Amino acid sequence: MENHKMIEKVNLLSVADNLPELSKYLTIGKLNDHVLNIVRVENRTLDFHVHDESDEMFYIIEGSMELEFEEGKIELCEGDFIIIPRGLVHRPVCKNLVKVLLIEKIGTLTGENTGGAFEK
Amino acid sequence: MENHKMIEKVNLLSVADNLPELSKYLTIGKLNDHVLNIVRVENRTLDFHVHDESDEMFYIIEGSMELEFEEGKIELCEGDFIIIPRGLVHRPVCKNLVKVLLIEKIGTLTGENTGGAFEK
Repeated sequence: MENHKMIEKVNLLSVADNLPELSKYLTIGKLNDHVLNIVRVENRTLDFHVHDESDEMFYIIEGSMELEFEEGKIELCEGDFIIIPRGLVHRPVCKNLVKVLLIEKIGTLTGENTGGAFEK
Repeated sequence: MENHKMIEKVNLLSVADNLPELSKYLTIGKLNDHVLNIVRVENRTLDFHVHDESDEMFYIIEGSMELEFEEGKIELCEGDFIIIPRGLVHRPVCKNLVKVLLIEKIGTLTGENTGGAFEK
């Protein structure tokens, strides 16, 4: 594929296995105005927050985590994905080690809503 | 989660395992103006085509397939994803059984560019 250096495949499982640092987001692709980030998290609970401009997709590559809402929570296990509609207050609760793919509009993740973990 | 019927988790591996019919797309979620479809395909090659308005993401849930371009091809295996930029001519070549997640802008997939398989 010498003539298409712009595109390359990425193995989601391999990059997730090789994430060097806990809680640091790694951008692995862009899809139109959306961005794919993966993160490896353990023993971490973020503050409740909301994204006003974008839905947010979580896909669990490995492990499990919870998403808490104002009136309930959902446990996510390997292979699960969920799409949080824009405007819905939520927070991730990661007790055990989990590897997650996130997809949302570029600019949605900030240092503020990731407990300082997302660096642009 | 009785108060959030609008959101629910989906297990990607389970829905892919239970796709009833070969080559029929199943919409499993919407993320902003994008849509997630899964499809189970075997022994099928689509015509070369292009999406002018949207990038297109392929994620291989199980199996393997090839993407052919005008000047080369890429083999995709389980766990691989690739993002085809809008405007790039391509065609999927699926020899063996493969289960794929597709994400692109709503309206990108049509009967025409899926060999009649996508029904809206």
